[in-house]
Amino acid sequence: MNFLEERILKDGIVKEGNVLKVDSFLNHQMDVELFNQMGEEFKRRFKGRNINKILTIEASGIGIACVAAIHFGVPVVFAKKSKSINIDGDMYIADVESFTHKCKNQVIVSKKFIGENDHVLLIDDFLANGCALQGLISIVNQAGGTVEGIGIAIEKGFQSGGQIIRNLGYHLESLAIVDSMNAETGEIEFRKQ
Amino acid sequence: MNFLEERILKDGIVKEGNVLKVDSFLNHQMDVELFNQMGEEFKRRFKGRNINKILTIEASGIGIACVAAIHFGVPVVFAKKSKSINIDGDMYIADVESFTHKCKNQVIVSKKFIGENDHVLLIDDFLANGCALQGLISIVNQAGGTVEGIGIAIEKGFQSGGQIIRNLGYHLESLAIVDSMNAETGEIEFRKQ
Repeated sequence: MNFLEERILKDGIVKEGNVLKVDSFLNHQMDVELFNQMGEEFKRRFKGRNINKILTIEASGIGIACVAAIHFGVPVVFAKKSKSINIDGDMYIADVESFTHKCKNQVIVSKKFIGENDHVLLIDDFLANGCALQGLISIVNQAGGTVEGIGIAIEKGFQSGGQIIRNLGYHLESLAIVDSMNAETGEIEFRKQ
Repeated sequence: MNFLEERILKDGIVKEGNVLKVDSFLNHQMDVELFNQMGEEFKRRFKGRNINKILTIEASGIGIACVAAIHFGVPVVFAKKSKSINIDGDMYIADVESFTHKCKNQVIVSKKFIGENDHVLLIDDFLANGCALQGLISIVNQAGGTVEGIGIAIEKGFQSGGQIIRNLGYHLESLAIVDSMNAETGEIEFRKQ
Protein backbone atom coordinates (compact mmCIF):
# COMPACT_ATOMS: atom_id res chain seq x y z
CA MET A 1 0.00 0.00 0.00
CA ASN A 2 1.45 3.38 -0.95
CA PHE A 3 1.42 6.68 0.96
CA LEU A 4 -1.74 7.98 -0.75
CA GLU A 5 -3.70 4.77 -0.24
CA GLU A 6 -2.70 4.84 3.42
CA ARG A 7 -3.86 8.44 3.74
CA ILE A 8 -7.18 7.66 2.05
CA LEU A 9 -7.77 4.82 4.52
CA LYS A 10 -6.86 7.11 7.42
CA ASP A 11 -8.76 10.28 6.47
CA GLY A 12 -11.08 9.46 3.56
CA ILE A 13 -14.77 9.04 4.30
CA VAL A 14 -17.04 6.77 2.27
CA LYS A 15 -20.54 8.12 1.72
CA GLU A 16 -23.65 6.65 0.15
CA GLY A 17 -23.67 6.67 -3.64
CA ASN A 18 -20.02 5.72 -4.07
CA VAL A 19 -18.85 9.13 -2.86
CA LEU A 20 -15.34 9.28 -1.41
CA LYS A 21 -14.75 12.42 0.60
CA VAL A 22 -11.11 13.47 0.79
CA ASP A 23 -11.72 17.15 1.47
CA SER A 24 -9.59 17.18 4.61
CA PHE A 25 -6.36 16.65 2.66
CA LEU A 26 -6.92 16.73 -1.10
CA ASN A 27 -9.60 19.01 -2.50
CA HIS A 28 -10.72 21.62 0.03
CA GLN A 29 -8.07 21.55 2.73
CA MET A 30 -4.85 20.58 0.99
CA ASP A 31 -1.87 18.81 2.58
CA VAL A 32 0.98 20.25 0.53
CA GLU A 33 3.52 17.85 2.03
CA LEU A 34 1.37 15.02 0.65
CA PHE A 35 1.25 16.90 -2.68
CA ASN A 36 5.04 17.04 -2.57
CA GLN A 37 5.20 13.24 -2.19
CA MET A 38 2.73 12.90 -5.05
CA GLY A 39 4.88 15.18 -7.20
CA GLU A 40 7.94 13.02 -6.50
CA GLU A 41 5.99 9.89 -7.36
CA PHE A 42 4.67 11.37 -10.64
CA LYS A 43 8.23 12.35 -11.51
CA ARG A 44 9.32 8.75 -10.90
CA ARG A 45 6.46 7.21 -12.87
CA PHE A 46 6.96 9.51 -15.87
CA LYS A 47 10.75 9.25 -15.80
CA GLY A 48 12.25 9.58 -19.28
CA ARG A 49 9.21 11.37 -20.66
CA ASN A 50 9.99 14.65 -22.36
CA ILE A 51 7.57 16.91 -20.49
CA ASN A 52 7.71 20.70 -20.84
CA LYS A 53 4.31 21.69 -19.48
CA ILE A 54 1.65 20.52 -17.05
CA LEU A 55 -2.03 21.08 -17.85
CA THR A 56 -4.71 20.80 -15.17
CA ILE A 57 -8.24 22.07 -14.61
CA GLU A 58 -9.68 24.40 -12.00
CA ALA A 59 -10.06 24.28 -9.12
CA SER A 60 -8.86 21.28 -7.18
CA GLY A 61 -6.28 20.13 -9.73
CA ILE A 62 -4.29 23.36 -9.45
CA GLY A 63 -2.60 22.76 -6.11
CA ILE A 64 -1.44 19.24 -6.99
CA ALA A 65 -0.25 20.40 -10.42
CA CYS A 66 1.73 23.37 -9.06
CA VAL A 67 3.53 21.36 -6.39
CA ALA A 68 4.23 18.55 -8.89
CA ALA A 69 5.53 21.12 -11.38
CA ILE A 70 8.35 22.02 -9.00
CA HIS A 71 9.64 18.45 -9.42
CA PHE A 72 9.39 18.65 -13.20
CA GLY A 73 10.74 22.21 -13.49
CA VAL A 74 7.98 23.21 -15.91
CA PRO A 75 5.12 25.75 -15.90
CA VAL A 76 1.49 24.84 -15.24
CA VAL A 77 -1.51 25.90 -17.27
CA PHE A 78 -4.94 25.50 -15.77
CA ALA A 79 -8.03 25.10 -17.91
CA LYS A 80 -11.11 27.06 -16.96
CA LYS A 81 -14.53 25.49 -16.80
CA SER A 82 -16.51 28.30 -18.34
CA LYS A 83 -15.79 31.32 -20.47
CA SER A 84 -14.05 33.96 -18.39
CA ILE A 85 -13.68 37.63 -19.18
CA ASN A 86 -10.09 37.43 -17.99
CA ILE A 87 -9.12 35.48 -21.07
CA ASP A 88 -8.97 37.49 -24.24
CA GLY A 89 -7.95 36.43 -27.71
CA ASP A 90 -8.35 33.00 -29.15
CA MET A 91 -9.16 30.06 -26.98
CA TYR A 92 -9.25 26.32 -27.33
CA ILE A 93 -12.65 25.11 -26.21
CA ALA A 94 -13.67 21.52 -25.58
CA ASP A 95 -17.34 20.78 -25.08
CA VAL A 96 -17.64 17.83 -22.75
CA GLU A 97 -20.81 16.09 -21.73
CA SER A 98 -21.21 13.47 -19.06
CA PHE A 99 -22.92 10.33 -20.39
CA THR A 100 -24.26 9.46 -16.95
CA HIS A 101 -24.79 12.89 -15.43
CA LYS A 102 -26.16 14.67 -18.46
CA CYS A 103 -24.15 17.77 -17.58
CA LYS A 104 -22.45 19.87 -20.22
CA ASN A 105 -19.30 21.82 -19.57
CA GLN A 106 -16.79 23.81 -21.53
CA VAL A 107 -13.10 23.35 -20.87
CA ILE A 108 -11.17 26.41 -22.00
CA VAL A 109 -7.49 27.25 -22.47
CA SER A 110 -5.97 30.29 -24.16
CA LYS A 111 -4.26 29.42 -27.45
CA LYS A 112 -1.23 31.36 -26.22
CA PHE A 113 -0.30 28.70 -23.71
CA ILE A 114 -0.53 25.33 -25.49
CA GLY A 115 1.06 24.79 -28.90
CA GLU A 116 2.37 22.17 -31.26
CA ASN A 117 5.75 22.03 -29.57
CA ASP A 118 4.29 21.25 -26.17
CA HIS A 119 4.76 17.87 -24.52
CA VAL A 120 2.12 17.92 -21.86
CA LEU A 121 1.53 16.03 -18.64
CA LEU A 122 -2.14 16.22 -17.60
CA ILE A 123 -2.76 16.24 -13.85
CA ASP A 124 -6.02 16.11 -11.93
CA ASP A 125 -7.19 15.08 -8.47
CA PHE A 126 -9.97 12.66 -9.47
CA LEU A 127 -10.77 10.44 -12.44
CA ALA A 128 -14.26 8.94 -12.50
CA ASN A 129 -16.23 9.14 -15.75
CA GLY A 130 -13.34 11.08 -17.28
CA CYS A 131 -15.24 14.02 -18.77
CA ALA A 132 -12.83 16.70 -17.60
CA LEU A 133 -9.86 14.64 -18.75
CA GLN A 134 -11.40 14.07 -22.17
CA GLY A 135 -11.71 17.85 -22.47
CA LEU A 136 -8.05 18.36 -21.56
CA ILE A 137 -6.93 15.74 -24.09
CA SER A 138 -9.10 17.40 -26.75
CA ILE A 139 -7.43 20.73 -26.07
CA VAL A 140 -3.89 19.35 -26.37
CA ASN A 141 -4.93 17.65 -29.62
CA GLN A 142 -6.52 20.86 -30.95
CA ALA A 143 -3.24 22.61 -30.23
CA GLY A 144 -1.24 19.96 -32.10
CA GLY A 145 0.67 19.16 -28.92
CA THR A 146 1.52 15.78 -27.42
CA VAL A 147 -0.02 14.19 -24.34
CA GLU A 148 3.05 12.61 -22.74
CA GLY A 149 1.14 11.24 -19.80
CA ILE A 150 -1.71 11.62 -17.37
CA GLY A 151 -1.21 11.71 -13.61
CA ILE A 152 -4.24 11.27 -11.36
CA ALA A 153 -4.39 11.20 -7.58
CA ILE A 154 -7.47 9.02 -7.11
CA GLU A 155 -9.15 6.96 -9.81
CA LYS A 156 -12.55 5.44 -9.23
CA GLY A 157 -11.81 2.10 -10.83
CA PHE A 158 -15.47 1.07 -10.83
CA GLN A 159 -16.29 3.90 -13.25
CA SER A 160 -15.31 3.76 -16.89
CA GLY A 161 -13.09 6.83 -17.29
CA GLY A 162 -9.73 5.20 -16.59
CA GLN A 163 -10.40 2.17 -18.80
CA ILE A 164 -11.41 4.36 -21.74
CA ILE A 165 -8.26 6.47 -21.42
CA ARG A 166 -6.07 3.33 -21.25
CA ASN A 167 -7.92 1.83 -24.23
CA LEU A 168 -7.01 4.97 -26.16
CA GLY A 169 -3.35 4.22 -25.50
CA TYR A 170 -2.51 7.04 -23.11
CA HIS A 171 0.04 6.52 -20.36
CA LEU A 172 -2.23 6.95 -17.34
CA GLU A 173 -0.86 6.72 -13.82
CA SER A 174 -3.30 6.87 -10.92
CA LEU A 175 -1.64 6.93 -7.51
CA ALA A 176 -4.63 5.17 -5.96
CA ILE A 177 -7.31 3.19 -7.78
CA VAL A 178 -10.40 2.50 -5.73
CA ASP A 179 -12.07 -0.69 -6.94
CA SER A 180 -14.89 -0.70 -4.43
CA MET A 181 -16.17 1.14 -1.40
CA ASN A 182 -18.73 0.28 1.24
CA ALA A 183 -20.53 3.19 2.88
CA GLU A 184 -21.88 0.98 5.68
CA THR A 185 -18.56 -0.47 6.81
CA GLY A 186 -16.34 2.33 5.51
CA GLU A 187 -14.18 -0.25 3.76
CA ILE A 188 -12.20 0.77 0.68
CA GLU A 189 -10.59 -1.75 -1.67
CA PHE A 190 -7.66 -0.61 -3.80
CA ARG A 191 -6.52 -2.17 -7.04
CA LYS A 192 -3.10 -3.81 -6.77
CA GLN A 193 -0.66 -1.95 -9.03
CA MET B 1 12.64 46.86 -8.06
CA ASN B 2 11.95 43.31 -6.87
CA PHE B 3 11.70 40.08 -8.88
CA LEU B 4 7.90 40.27 -9.28
CA GLU B 5 7.92 43.91 -10.39
CA GLU B 6 10.62 43.04 -12.92
CA ARG B 7 8.55 40.15 -14.21
CA ILE B 8 5.43 42.33 -14.51
CA LEU B 9 7.40 44.87 -16.56
CA LYS B 10 8.77 42.08 -18.75
CA ASP B 11 5.62 40.02 -19.35
CA GLY B 12 2.63 41.99 -18.08
CA ILE B 13 0.40 43.70 -20.62
CA VAL B 14 -1.52 46.89 -19.88
CA LYS B 15 -4.97 47.06 -21.46
CA GLU B 16 -7.59 49.76 -21.64
CA GLY B 17 -9.65 50.21 -18.49
CA ASN B 18 -6.77 49.72 -16.05
CA VAL B 19 -6.54 46.02 -16.85
CA LEU B 20 -3.18 44.37 -16.19
CA LYS B 21 -2.86 41.03 -17.92
CA VAL B 22 -0.42 38.66 -16.24
CA ASP B 23 -1.92 35.44 -17.56
CA SER B 24 1.37 34.23 -19.05
CA PHE B 25 2.95 33.70 -15.63
CA LEU B 26 0.47 34.27 -12.79
CA ASN B 27 -3.17 33.36 -13.32
CA HIS B 28 -3.64 31.13 -16.35
CA GLN B 29 -0.17 29.86 -17.18
CA MET B 30 1.70 29.72 -13.89
CA ASP B 31 5.46 30.01 -13.40
CA VAL B 32 5.96 27.84 -10.33
CA GLU B 33 9.60 28.91 -9.94
CA LEU B 34 8.31 32.47 -9.60
CA PHE B 35 5.71 31.18 -7.10
CA ASN B 36 8.58 29.60 -5.19
CA GLN B 37 10.34 32.97 -4.97
CA MET B 38 7.08 34.57 -3.88
CA GLY B 39 6.66 31.91 -1.18
CA GLU B 40 10.18 32.63 0.12
CA GLU B 41 9.43 36.35 0.16
CA PHE B 42 6.13 35.89 2.03
CA LYS B 43 7.96 33.72 4.55
CA ARG B 44 10.49 36.55 5.04
CA ARG B 45 7.84 39.26 5.33
CA PHE B 46 5.75 37.33 7.83
CA LYS B 47 8.73 36.10 9.85
CA GLY B 48 7.87 35.65 13.50
CA ARG B 49 4.16 35.33 12.82
CA ASN B 50 2.60 32.22 14.28
CA ILE B 51 0.91 30.85 11.16
CA ASN B 52 -0.61 27.36 11.09
CA LYS B 53 -2.83 27.58 8.01
CA ILE B 54 -3.08 29.38 4.69
CA LEU B 55 -6.49 30.37 3.32
CA THR B 56 -6.97 31.33 -0.32
CA ILE B 57 -9.80 31.46 -2.84
CA GLU B 58 -10.37 29.59 -6.07
CA ALA B 59 -9.09 29.50 -8.69
CA SER B 60 -5.97 31.56 -9.29
CA GLY B 61 -4.97 31.93 -5.64
CA ILE B 62 -4.56 28.18 -5.18
CA GLY B 63 -1.25 27.70 -7.00
CA ILE B 64 0.50 30.57 -5.22
CA ALA B 65 -0.90 29.46 -1.87
CA CYS B 66 0.18 25.82 -2.28
CA VAL B 67 3.73 26.67 -3.31
CA ALA B 68 4.00 29.26 -0.52
CA ALA B 69 2.66 26.70 1.97
CA ILE B 70 5.71 24.52 1.37
CA HIS B 71 7.81 27.34 2.83
CA PHE B 72 5.52 27.71 5.85
CA GLY B 73 5.03 23.96 6.39
CA VAL B 74 1.28 24.38 6.82
CA PRO B 75 -1.84 23.14 4.98
CA VAL B 76 -3.86 25.28 2.58
CA VAL B 77 -7.63 25.68 2.55
CA PHE B 78 -9.26 27.18 -0.49
CA ALA B 79 -12.58 28.99 -0.32
CA LYS B 80 -15.12 28.28 -3.01
CA LYS B 81 -16.99 31.00 -4.77
CA SER B 82 -20.39 29.37 -4.90
CA LYS B 83 -22.17 26.57 -3.13
CA SER B 84 -20.73 23.26 -4.20
CA ILE B 85 -22.25 19.84 -3.79
CA ASN B 86 -18.84 18.51 -2.81
CA ILE B 87 -19.04 20.27 0.54
CA ASP B 88 -21.42 18.74 3.01
CA GLY B 89 -22.12 19.73 6.56
CA ASP B 90 -21.87 23.17 7.97
CA MET B 91 -20.17 25.94 6.06
CA TYR B 92 -19.00 29.44 6.76
CA ILE B 93 -20.52 31.71 4.14
CA ALA B 94 -19.55 35.33 3.48
CA ASP B 95 -21.80 37.36 1.18
CA VAL B 96 -19.64 39.90 -0.58
CA GLU B 97 -20.83 42.60 -2.91
CA SER B 98 -18.69 44.87 -5.05
CA PHE B 99 -19.51 48.55 -4.47
CA THR B 100 -18.33 49.46 -7.95
CA HIS B 101 -19.21 46.37 -9.93
CA LYS B 102 -22.55 45.57 -8.32
CA CYS B 103 -21.75 41.87 -8.37
CA LYS B 104 -22.67 39.57 -5.51
CA ASN B 105 -20.69 36.51 -4.60
CA GLN B 106 -20.61 33.96 -1.85
CA VAL B 107 -17.30 32.89 -0.37
CA ILE B 108 -17.63 29.47 1.25
CA VAL B 109 -15.43 27.36 3.53
CA SER B 110 -16.35 24.19 5.40
CA LYS B 111 -16.49 24.73 9.17
CA LYS B 112 -14.31 21.64 9.55
CA PHE B 113 -11.23 23.43 8.26
CA ILE B 114 -11.08 26.81 10.01
CA GLY B 115 -11.51 27.09 13.77
CA GLU B 116 -10.79 29.29 16.77
CA ASN B 117 -7.28 27.92 17.17
CA ASP B 118 -6.27 28.78 13.65
CA HIS B 119 -3.74 31.51 12.90
CA VAL B 120 -4.31 32.17 9.27
CA LEU B 121 -2.31 33.73 6.47
CA LEU B 122 -4.58 34.85 3.63
CA ILE B 123 -3.06 34.63 0.15
CA ASP B 124 -4.42 35.76 -3.20
CA ASP B 125 -3.05 36.76 -6.58
CA PHE B 126 -4.76 40.15 -6.96
CA LEU B 127 -6.10 42.84 -4.66
CA ALA B 128 -8.20 45.56 -6.29
CA ASN B 129 -11.50 46.50 -4.66
CA GLY B 130 -10.88 43.81 -2.05
CA CYS B 131 -14.23 42.01 -2.18
CA ALA B 132 -12.81 38.49 -2.18
CA LEU B 133 -10.41 39.37 0.62
CA GLN B 134 -13.20 40.89 2.72
CA GLY B 135 -15.03 37.58 2.36
CA LEU B 136 -11.98 35.59 3.50
CA ILE B 137 -11.49 37.86 6.53
CA SER B 138 -15.18 37.49 7.39
CA ILE B 139 -14.84 33.71 7.32
CA VAL B 140 -11.81 33.67 9.65
CA ASN B 141 -13.69 36.00 11.99
CA GLN B 142 -16.83 33.84 11.88
CA ALA B 143 -14.64 30.89 12.83
CA GLY B 144 -13.12 32.77 15.78
CA GLY B 145 -9.67 32.40 14.23
CA THR B 146 -6.93 35.00 13.85
CA VAL B 147 -5.83 36.69 10.63
CA GLU B 148 -2.06 36.79 11.11
CA GLY B 149 -1.40 38.43 7.80
CA ILE B 150 -2.39 38.89 4.20
CA GLY B 151 -0.03 38.17 1.31
CA ILE B 152 -0.93 39.45 -2.14
CA ALA B 153 1.01 39.13 -5.37
CA ILE B 154 -0.22 42.26 -7.16
CA GLU B 155 -2.15 45.11 -5.57
CA LYS B 156 -3.82 47.75 -7.71
CA GLY B 157 -2.84 50.71 -5.58
CA PHE B 158 -5.20 53.04 -7.41
CA GLN B 159 -8.20 51.05 -6.17
CA SER B 160 -9.37 51.21 -2.59
CA GLY B 161 -9.08 47.59 -1.43
CA GLY B 162 -5.57 47.75 -0.01
CA GLN B 163 -6.10 51.03 1.84
CA ILE B 164 -9.28 49.73 3.49
CA ILE B 165 -7.53 46.56 4.66
CA ARG B 166 -4.59 48.59 6.07
CA ASN B 167 -7.03 51.02 7.74
CA LEU B 168 -8.58 48.01 9.48
CA GLY B 169 -5.18 47.24 10.97
CA TYR B 170 -4.32 44.07 9.10
CA HIS B 171 -0.73 43.24 8.23
CA LEU B 172 -0.98 43.36 4.44
CA GLU B 173 2.03 42.64 2.26
CA SER B 174 1.69 43.08 -1.49
CA LEU B 175 4.75 42.00 -3.46
CA ALA B 176 3.99 44.56 -6.17
CA ILE B 177 1.77 47.63 -5.83
CA VAL B 178 0.80 49.20 -9.14
CA ASP B 179 0.11 52.89 -8.64
CA SER B 180 -0.65 53.69 -12.25
CA MET B 181 -0.70 52.14 -15.69
CA ASN B 182 -0.87 53.61 -19.17
CA ALA B 183 -2.46 51.44 -21.84
CA GLU B 184 -1.12 53.65 -24.65
CA THR B 185 2.53 53.60 -23.64
CA GLY B 186 2.44 50.32 -21.68
CA GLU B 187 4.10 52.08 -18.75
CA ILE B 188 3.55 50.73 -15.24
CA GLU B 189 4.45 52.69 -12.11
CA PHE B 190 5.08 50.78 -8.90
CA ARG B 191 4.80 52.16 -5.39
CA LYS B 192 8.15 52.32 -3.60
CA GLN B 193 8.07 49.93 -0.63
